Amino acid sequence: MSKKIVIIGAVAAGPKTACRLRRLQPEWEITMVDQDSLISYGGCGIPYYVSGDVSDESELRATSFHVVRDASFFENAKGVHVMTRTRAMAIDRKEKKVLVRNVDSGVEQHLPYDQLMLATGAKPFELPIPGAGLDGVFTIANLHKAIEIRSRISQGKVSRAVVIGGGAIGIEMAEAFTDLWGIETTLLELAPQLLPRLVDWHFAAMLQKHLQEKGVAVFTRESATELIDDGQGKVCGVKTAQRTLEADLVIMAVGVRPRSELAQAAGLEVAPWGGIKVNQRLQTSDPAIYAAGDCIAVTSLITGREIYMPLGSLANREGRIVADNMAGQPSAFKGVCGSFIMKAFERCIASTGITHEAALAEGFDADYALTSPPDRAHFFPDQAVVILQLVFDRRTRRVLGLQAFGMMNDSISARVDAAAGLIAQGGTIEDFGLLEMAYAPPFSSAIDSINAAAYVAENICDNRLRRVDLDRFLGWMEDMSSEPDWAVLDIRHPLEAAPYVEKYGANRWVALQYEQIRARHGELPAGKTFIIICNAGTRSYEVQVLLDHLGKSASLILPGGLNVISRLNVDWMLN
Amino acid sequence: MSKKIVIIGAVAAGPKTACRLRRLQPEWEITMVDQDSLISYGGCGIPYYVSGDVSDESELRATSFHVVRDASFFENAKGVHVMTRTRAMAIDRKEKKVLVRNVDSGVEQHLPYDQLMLATGAKPFELPIPGAGLDGVFTIANLHKAIEIRSRISQGKVSRAVVIGGGAIGIEMAEAFTDLWGIETTLLELAPQLLPRLVDWHFAAMLQKHLQEKGVAVFTRESATELIDDGQGKVCGVKTAQRTLEADLVIMAVGVRPRSELAQAAGLEVAPWGGIKVNQRLQTSDPAIYAAGDCIAVTSLITGREIYMPLGSLANREGRIVADNMAGQPSAFKGVCGSFIMKAFERCIASTGITHEAALAEGFDADYALTSPPDRAHFFPDQAVVILQLVFDRRTRRVLGLQAFGMMNDSISARVDAAAGLIAQGGTIEDFGLLEMAYAPPFSSAIDSINAAAYVAENICDNRLRRVDLDRFLGWMEDMSSEPDWAVLDIRHPLEAAPYVEKYGANRWVALQYEQIRARHGELPAGKTFIIICNAGTRSYEVQVLLDHLGKSASLILPGGLNVISRLNVDWMLN
Repeated sequence: MSKKIVIIGAVAAGPKTACRLRRLQPEWEITMVDQDSLISYGGCGIPYYVSGDVSDESELRATSFHVVRDASFFENAKGVHVMTRTRAMAIDRKEKKVLVRNVDSGVEQHLPYDQLMLATGAKPFELPIPGAGLDGVFTIANLHKAIEIRSRISQGKVSRAVVIGGGAIGIEMAEAFTDLWGIETTLLELAPQLLPRLVDWHFAAMLQKHLQEKGVAVFTRESATELIDDGQGKVCGVKTAQRTLEADLVIMAVGVRPRSELAQAAGLEVAPWGGIKVNQRLQTSDPAIYAAGDCIAVTSLITGREIYMPLGSLANREGRIVADNMAGQPSAFKGVCGSFIMKAFERCIASTGITHEAALAEGFDADYALTSPPDRAHFFPDQAVVILQLVFDRRTRRVLGLQAFGMMNDSISARVDAAAGLIAQGGTIEDFGLLEMAYAPPFSSAIDSINAAAYVAENICDNRLRRVDLDRFLGWMEDMSSEPDWAVLDIRHPLEAAPYVEKYGANRWVALQYEQIRARHGELPAGKTFIIICNAGTRSYEVQVLLDHLGKSASLILPGGLNVISRLNVDWMLN
Repeated sequence: MSKKIVIIGAVAAGPKTACRLRRLQPEWEITMVDQDSLISYGGCGIPYYVSGDVSDESELRATSFHVVRDASFFENAKGVHVMTRTRAMAIDRKEKKVLVRNVDSGVEQHLPYDQLMLATGAKPFELPIPGAGLDGVFTIANLHKAIEIRSRISQGKVSRAVVIGGGAIGIEMAEAFTDLWGIETTLLELAPQLLPRLVDWHFAAMLQKHLQEKGVAVFTRESATELIDDGQGKVCGVKTAQRTLEADLVIMAVGVRPRSELAQAAGLEVAPWGGIKVNQRLQTSDPAIYAAGDCIAVTSLITGREIYMPLGSLANREGRIVADNMAGQPSAFKGVCGSFIMKAFERCIASTGITHEAALAEGFDADYALTSPPDRAHFFPDQAVVILQLVFDRRTRRVLGLQAFGMMNDSISARVDAAAGLIAQGGTIEDFGLLEMAYAPPFSSAIDSINAAAYVAENICDNRLRRVDLDRFLGWMEDMSSEPDWAVLDIRHPLEAAPYVEKYGANRWVALQYEQIRARHGELPAGKTFIIICNAGTRSYEVQVLLDHLGKSASLILPGGLNVISRLNVDWMLN
């Protein structure tokens, strides 16, 4: 028997449900409504359209076979009825119908449904500050805004931009402005770090240093308090508590909120923060109404808690599951790890699962293994250091997350994707140690970086490896009187250690090369707690084990070694 | 209490065990013996040393901090005693001692042990053909051979080479010769395809086509029957059943065999094909004797059967597990998926798990999903097609393997590594559909290629998608009378279809564009079984569903579409 399906929202989850359902139920009447005229686009591609990497906005709306996905494409090719510029006003759950209104004509009508889907997406949060409504101030709300931004840039109207918000979109926009258009760009983030909650502070610090090297001015713990009017209704500057910045263009990228007013008004269960509640079948509290995409609350596979994860990739996966369930083919969406990846100029940063900071806050017996191995065989020509951190629970030995920072290539994808699959299955440190990464020198090391990180985690869990936290070490570097017994034991080549010995004194910075420790450990000064330092941290661990064996057990290793420290904003260490 | 450990073999597994054990048991006496003078090297890097990508052989023996891992390095830095040029002659299990002989002096001695490790590795198989012992004929047995090969090449002594064996090493050597040195190179493989057992035939065919485009002459179903003497004991040519090839250099890369004579002579259990049998602790049939690396039999996580998997990455992982168990810290090696990856000029080919052919032979209800999606967002500038095949069991829906062929970057690593982790956990098609690949346009698609392959597998399992096998389709293309009712339904753009319609006739090659099928399906000729063709195979599936719904159910789709066909050696299709 044919059924009537209404889908509200036609960007990602909605079209995916419509197309999959059409294939499962060729007879059913499927209607998709959207208040916009442009539908079914890759919103995540907006920064690459603004940068010019993607030459035309229509490419973001095209299929892989270069046909634009507009209303007539859905009608003709997919057999899905689409009403654009049509806003859903109210849901009558009892009568099973949706009141919709044409945005242009104002004409209203009722669409009856057997099953309804809410794919209403998210809206960007707008800072409630003076000047927020000025011309030249944009959120990345939809494709129209992106077109307008790029048009202004390409007309030469933008020479200075301020991006408010140091999340993924803000950083991608800052790169687009700086890298391809040469716009003088400032990035503001209210939190103490970029990518708050997505990565731990030291990963954010490495990213920030790279952005600054690439010409983006970055200020953390700082946001806009006012946008300045040029007297003609156009923005000309941004005020913060610390400074005033000139700007022809301001991007507000301070996060998005679920669009759930319609669901709320219909009496469906909605989380206090706005996410529509759904079960594993992606049904709302009304079983005839499904929801998916940026408007719903999802379950964290790490904590079991409700979280918000507005990502186009999840929207698509969820959309397919809605179609299956609507068609009578049970299918479950179990939850998310929270995988995230982004390009930032010549670097890539990614994470899956939760950060160490979040894991502590969640009450896990959380710890981390921070490493800096090469991203492929160390003898292979274009190998480069990658910074990897595995977050785990000491008690259960379960892996809770992985973070990575390295060169802009796909090697980090490989590690984060492999980790996500295993974390979703409840994988332990030991599972990560055995993870079978495909090996050949152009792609990986014989001991893959992810295996190596698991080995370090195991050594930490088993109390064989004792580490100093980076912030504590940096604090001591700035004020060595804070830990009067500490001294660095630098086991790198003497030529590498020499400038540090000179700067900090042989009493504070002891140089003794790794290969000579067994023979010359007697020369080490007594009564010190050694912070053992090498380039990657691996040799330091060996030396710690040896010193322990010799009864000199007061030592800590610097995790990830100089490879990590040198990527932070700590040029003062040697300057 | 201190124990005496003897390790036989010092290339990969042996040194890993020695170093890990030293850290776990700083007191124990660890002795490593090897018959070679060069130890602890990255054998997998040999083709990159021969090519010149790696400039000096010492780099293959160096640590990531550029110190050469020779005997004195192990003594001084690691506290491990190493005896090079020392051959293990016999094991006295009752007295727990190993008889060793210095290769140069002939002096013999007994090394007592509490625990012994066999890391005796593998030896290359040598074809028993006339001329196998000629000067200029090499196996890739060790670093000395590699040094000699490169030395001959760099002295200009090699203008034509023949590589016997189309496995990974043979192909890598052929690339090294051709790409960087411009040597006229021929590759011979006795099996009907390159990389036999590692990938299914169509993946091998795509690789073969690329090698040929890059100038390597490739002959399958053909091997050397004789190596020709130039009259002075040097090779000057290779005879096969089909031809005679000139050659200054011949590489025999026809596989390796476990070195297990020592184990066998000591009465340890050894598989009929030579692999030393071990339990999950990596103990041989004598619990005081461990074995790891290229000399052992491992368990397939797919079939549960004993297999041979000589890989440096496994050797290292196993070596660590031996150390843990020796030290009294229980640790298990559960088995392998069999992940494999290689660079071949500008392409990458990889697999994990088992092939479709192997899965059928193993008695699985095996099937496969063959797809050809873009490797990142289809609107992102440098995206390229990747060919992915998921192999699965229809009855249990368990994924048995993944194969991939695409551009030379790390994107295939990401898919194969993520798949290996999940296959090892017994992941199903549905788990693969939910696999959370990190998404941003520079790295992946909103629906990642691995998720998309799982969706196709689901549609096949649920009998929604009916496919023609590639070989059957190609057979029909060569002789259309073999299936008189078949006709191609080409749903690509009419301009793409036109040359085919012209060549094969509108009766055999029907062009009707995807977007117009709903409106114009009435024009399709009756009584045909349509082979539906598009570029990637996705639109074909939609059209099949639609035709089924219209009662025209005699159709099959061409999996992976023209993207796959055009990468095979089938230029005749249009020429």
